[in-house]
Amino acid sequence: MREVFHRELAQLGNQLFRMCELAADAMRRATLALLDGDVELAEQVMEDEAELDQAGKACEGFAQSLLALQAPVASDLRAVLATLYCAVKVERMGGLAVNVAKLVRRSHPARAVPPGLEDHFRRMGELDVRMCEHLSELVTGSAEGRFAELNRTDDAVDALHARILETVTGGDWPHGIPAGVNAALLARFYERFADQAVSVARRLEFADTGTLPT
Amino acid sequence: MREVFHRELAQLGNQLFRMCELAADAMRRATLALLDGDVELAEQVMEDEAELDQAGKACEGFAQSLLALQAPVASDLRAVLATLYCAVKVERMGGLAVNVAKLVRRSHPARAVPPGLEDHFRRMGELDVRMCEHLSELVTGSAEGRFAELNRTDDAVDALHARILETVTGGDWPHGIPAGVNAALLARFYERFADQAVSVARRLEFADTGTLPT
Repeated sequence: MREVFHRELAQLGNQLFRMCELAADAMRRATLALLDGDVELAEQVMEDEAELDQAGKACEGFAQSLLALQAPVASDLRAVLATLYCAVKVERMGGLAVNVAKLVRRSHPARAVPPGLEDHFRRMGELDVRMCEHLSELVTGSAEGRFAELNRTDDAVDALHARILETVTGGDWPHGIPAGVNAALLARFYERFADQAVSVARRLEFADTGTLPT
Repeated sequence: MREVFHRELAQLGNQLFRMCELAADAMRRATLALLDGDVELAEQVMEDEAELDQAGKACEGFAQSLLALQAPVASDLRAVLATLYCAVKVERMGGLAVNVAKLVRRSHPARAVPPGLEDHFRRMGELDVRMCEHLSELVTGSAEGRFAELNRTDDAVDALHARILETVTGGDWPHGIPAGVNAALLARFYERFADQAVSVARRLEFADTGTLPT
C-alpha cells in the first residue's frame, strides 16, 4: 500500500515538474517575443497557456484522489498538500508570462520593450527562467537549502525591478508615458514571477524538512 | 464522528470568514489612506498584514490536521481543500491592499492618488471591498450562483482598470510619468484583488456544488 502510494506521489511530482517546465518555457518565449517584438511568438505563448492550465487541473485532480483514497498523514500529507499549493503558484507563473506576451501584442506594431531597458528585461527573463528551472530540479530532488538560493536570485530580480522603476520615474525619462507605464508593468510581471518561484521553493522545502524556511 | 467533523468544518469556515473580513478591512483602509494621503493609516495597514498572515497559517494548520485526523472524502474533502485554496488567495488579497498602502508611503509627502483619478480609485476600492464582503457571506452561506454575481462586479473593476490605463497612456496625460506609473500600478493592484475574489468565489461554488463554474 505504501509502495503504491509512493509511486503515486512520484507521479504527482512528475506532474508538477512538467508544469514547471511549461512555465519556464512560457517565460523564456515571452521574453524573446518582448525583445524581438515578435507578435506571433507572443500569441503562441498566449495559446499555450491552456496546456499549463490543463496540467494544473490534472495535478490537482490526482492530488485530490490521493487524499481521498490513501488518506496520507505526516510527511506524506505534507507532500501532497505542498504539490496542491505549488501547482496553483506555477499556474500563476505561466499567467504572468502570458501577461508579458499580452503586452507585446497590445503594443504591436510598436515594440513593447521600453528603449534602453532591453538588457534589464533580458536579465530579468533569464533570472526568472533560471529560478523556474531550479524549481524543476527541486521537485525531483531534495529541496533542502534551495530556498535560500532561489531567495538570493529573487533579490537580484527585485533590484532590477527597483532600478527600472527609478529609471522610468526619475525625472529624465525621455520615452514618454506609454513606454514608462509598459516598463513598470513588465517589471512587475517579472518580479511577481520570481516571487511565486520563491513561495514554491519555500513550500517544497517545508514538505521536505517539516520546517518552513524564513 | 461526522458530527464532530462538521463542527470542525464550520470552525474552519469561521477562520476563512475572519480572513475575508481582515482583507476587506485592509483594502477599505488602504483606499482611505490613498485618497486622503494618510501615511499613518497606510503604515497601520502594513503593520496589520501580520494578523492576516497569522490567520492564514492557523487556517492552513487546522485544515491540515482535519485532513490527517479525519481523512474526509467526497464533498467533505472538497470543502477542506477549497478552504486551503481560498486561504492562500485571501492572504494575497491582503497583500495587494498592502501594496496600495506601500505606494502611499513611498509617495509621501506627495499624494499617491493621481490627480483627476480620485473617483476611479474610490470606486475601485468600493467594488473590491464589496466583493470581499460578498465572499464573507458566501463562506458562511450558500455559494451557489454567487460566482456569477462576483464575476459581474469583476467586469466593472476591469473596465475601470482599462479606463485608467487609457487615460494615463492616451497622449494627453498632463501629470507626468511618476503619477502615470502610480496610476497604472494602483489600478493593477485593485484589479488583481478583484481577480482573487473571483477565484475564491469560484472555488467555494465548486466546493458547494461539485461543479466548477466557468
